[in-house]
Amino acid sequence: MTTRATRSGVLAEDEGRAAAVAAVLAPVLGERLTDNASVRFAHGRGEGFHAPMPPDLVAFPQSTVEVSAVVAACAQHKLPIIAWGAGTSLEGGVTAPRGGLCLDLSNMNRIVAVNPEDLDCTVEAGVTREDLNTHLRDTGLFFPIDPGANATLGGMAATRASGTTAVRYGTMRDNVLSLRVVLADGRVVRTTGRARKSSAGYDLTRLFVGSEGTLGVITEVTLRLSGLPETVVAAVCPFDDLAGAVGCVIETMQTGVPLARIELLDAVQIGACNAYSRTELPETPTLFLEFHGAPRAVEEQVGTFAEIAARHGAGAVSRATRPEDRSRLWRARHNAYHAAQALRPGTSLVVSDVCVPISRLADCVLATHADIAEAGMVAPIVGHVGDGNFHVMFTVDGSDPVEVSRVRLLNDRLVDRALAMDGTCTGEHGIGAGKREKLIAELGGEAVGLMLAVKRAFDPQGLLNPDKIFLPSEDPL
Amino acid sequence: MTTRATRSGVLAEDEGRAAAVAAVLAPVLGERLTDNASVRFAHGRGEGFHAPMPPDLVAFPQSTVEVSAVVAACAQHKLPIIAWGAGTSLEGGVTAPRGGLCLDLSNMNRIVAVNPEDLDCTVEAGVTREDLNTHLRDTGLFFPIDPGANATLGGMAATRASGTTAVRYGTMRDNVLSLRVVLADGRVVRTTGRARKSSAGYDLTRLFVGSEGTLGVITEVTLRLSGLPETVVAAVCPFDDLAGAVGCVIETMQTGVPLARIELLDAVQIGACNAYSRTELPETPTLFLEFHGAPRAVEEQVGTFAEIAARHGAGAVSRATRPEDRSRLWRARHNAYHAAQALRPGTSLVVSDVCVPISRLADCVLATHADIAEAGMVAPIVGHVGDGNFHVMFTVDGSDPVEVSRVRLLNDRLVDRALAMDGTCTGEHGIGAGKREKLIAELGGEAVGLMLAVKRAFDPQGLLNPDKIFLPSEDPL
Repeated sequence: MTTRATRSGVLAEDEGRAAAVAAVLAPVLGERLTDNASVRFAHGRGEGFHAPMPPDLVAFPQSTVEVSAVVAACAQHKLPIIAWGAGTSLEGGVTAPRGGLCLDLSNMNRIVAVNPEDLDCTVEAGVTREDLNTHLRDTGLFFPIDPGANATLGGMAATRASGTTAVRYGTMRDNVLSLRVVLADGRVVRTTGRARKSSAGYDLTRLFVGSEGTLGVITEVTLRLSGLPETVVAAVCPFDDLAGAVGCVIETMQTGVPLARIELLDAVQIGACNAYSRTELPETPTLFLEFHGAPRAVEEQVGTFAEIAARHGAGAVSRATRPEDRSRLWRARHNAYHAAQALRPGTSLVVSDVCVPISRLADCVLATHADIAEAGMVAPIVGHVGDGNFHVMFTVDGSDPVEVSRVRLLNDRLVDRALAMDGTCTGEHGIGAGKREKLIAELGGEAVGLMLAVKRAFDPQGLLNPDKIFLPSEDPL
Repeated sequence: MTTRATRSGVLAEDEGRAAAVAAVLAPVLGERLTDNASVRFAHGRGEGFHAPMPPDLVAFPQSTVEVSAVVAACAQHKLPIIAWGAGTSLEGGVTAPRGGLCLDLSNMNRIVAVNPEDLDCTVEAGVTREDLNTHLRDTGLFFPIDPGANATLGGMAATRASGTTAVRYGTMRDNVLSLRVVLADGRVVRTTGRARKSSAGYDLTRLFVGSEGTLGVITEVTLRLSGLPETVVAAVCPFDDLAGAVGCVIETMQTGVPLARIELLDAVQIGACNAYSRTELPETPTLFLEFHGAPRAVEEQVGTFAEIAARHGAGAVSRATRPEDRSRLWRARHNAYHAAQALRPGTSLVVSDVCVPISRLADCVLATHADIAEAGMVAPIVGHVGDGNFHVMFTVDGSDPVEVSRVRLLNDRLVDRALAMDGTCTGEHGIGAGKREKLIAELGGEAVGLMLAVKRAFDPQGLLNPDKIFLPSEDPL
């Protein structure tokens, strides 16, 4: 609370608003509305390095109608509203810098409809991607987007998430068909129908995808599903050096091999995975791959890849065809975050997220690797390299201001490098609170001004996830 | 001019504004600004059934800087601005109901950059898709989106165009990486960089794609390119009846065969093509197909398709593997519009454009076919059926009010049917002037209200392509 009080000087007013909203909502939500301190603090931060800033209230609505009632009450009393999925934001996207009410949507976990013949489904925002895939198990379909964390589908839509399979299946931008959204005044809209394509007016769906809770609260998501591939082959391929691994990725992408996954882990990360996930991989830059398709098509893909890899100094391509071996491999990849953290117990991670045109990937990765080596930092590199997207996981001792500032400088340098290559400061984590200056550096004040014009039109009181995407000085509150 | 004068009663004022803008721009544009009557009338309508409404002035800018100067002058004098690509709109998207200045972008036809290693390129808005593909000929890459007409890439972005290959390659939504846009006051923004994905703020690119010139003037388009497939097989497959053809499409899509094209032509359309394009196809419902990929993968696809087709009453699948045979086939498909028109010389075409979830496609097509038969109309059906999108081409004698009103009723009935199936009133042609009521019927007043809020934020004077997408009563001018 001190953070807010210090920053805004309006703590008492905040609390008065929260009390007024609580009085309106208590009869509706009962115990599903709370100001319990431990619940509030648990909802004051995501993952990653950002300082916690708890909300005044936490609500656990069970339906779009309840979300609408909560938002309307907050609008009436000018109380900020922060939507919450699984709390896996890495950029401070779910903190409450101005207090307010946290809308925890995890109770909205119903699967509304699965339409196997249309390859789509509709879920409430709180359904996690793993729950959805468990539910789809017997349909022959799956939802491919895989950001690693078992995030909620509402949260994934809100941050335009992607991850390991985006190289083949696209991001949430490509896989959300339609949304149900509660607007800043409590009204409810559905953005479009279930047709696979439409030219009917502005693309409201894509406007809400990636808006990080600042334009409305997503309560239902209609998703495209994919057919389970007939054949899945995972593979591991070690390289002599980082340049060879990245060169192989670039050539594979340019050749048009329709890979389902192509992930880079540098030698430091492989060491971290071996220690954390008990894999026994040679500690050298390595690609984790997955091939999806009909049997002959997959063989063709693996063959093409192996030829390209050999030209770039690869060792043998080891296949994992049994489901349990594939799971083990991807579990190790998904635990890369925790494995990196375990390299220096007690430290936090600052995770960069740049994405560059593929032709610049080698330059960007190698220059970054050299920076890390020169600084003597423990900062493994992993990446969804088929998209030109990679993460440096800087381990940081938050109690050491010198180290914090060195990491910040290095991360800034990395973002500036990516922007100079016509890339982006965030491939998939979003702007949140952490990259607001970088957004302006990337797109310029005019483009960010257009975004702010949309924000003002949709949320004139500035109550929806305030101080995210835009700096407070730009915010209309 | 009478239309405008009658409707608005402000003809003299309009002309005063146009004269003021002409005085500002004449020194900049010279002969590339004109009020010549025949040029104005040529810019008063697209294709299709909508009445011509010519602008007061036509400008032919040669750069983004010139577009910015034109827009700034119009903004200063409150003169409407209608962007013009190739004039192939079917929904009255390029008419000038309030007069104003038509910005003909066809001189902006430079290919700014091709980055083969990144599979992208940047072109000025006036480059046509055929010119781009000619330019790319020796790169091993191509731009796959194919709406039939040789439209400009700026126009295709503005209407979120798609066409025969969307089933495999997506629509303009999926293939535009970034845009350069002149805003309503003349400022210029670039929506994003060239990274394959980004979570940096609101998706301005997707907001402008499909905005039909109502939010800004697109002057440059950065596009994703695709590798030319190693193997291309086109094929024709006749069916006993329409139900069999549509059933085959549905099962093929549900099986996940990655078809590059799957087009339906009903018996009437096949007859029209035989007459117009001198093909010799059996006059029965027919699928035109194309398969792209590595050689074995394509064989696998053709085999899977042929098995499914046989179960749905198909005749033999005839392949066209030689490039000239493939070209002949797709030329016949692209000329379907002219072939339909030639069925009743002197008539116009009203082209419907519904798109429904694939599971409803058979119901929607068959009920529509029955409607047409019952009304005794000449109205062939063609469609991008893999996406659930199809067109009825109603031939209409515009001088017969009874016929015009019968077509309108039948078209309304078709749209209502598609909306009841959770589909859309336009898969790819846009709203323009023709479907503004349908947009409200489809999405509801609240969603259209959000679009209008964006419109007001971006174009407070309401000068950009007025009376398109929104009804005049909703328009802020």
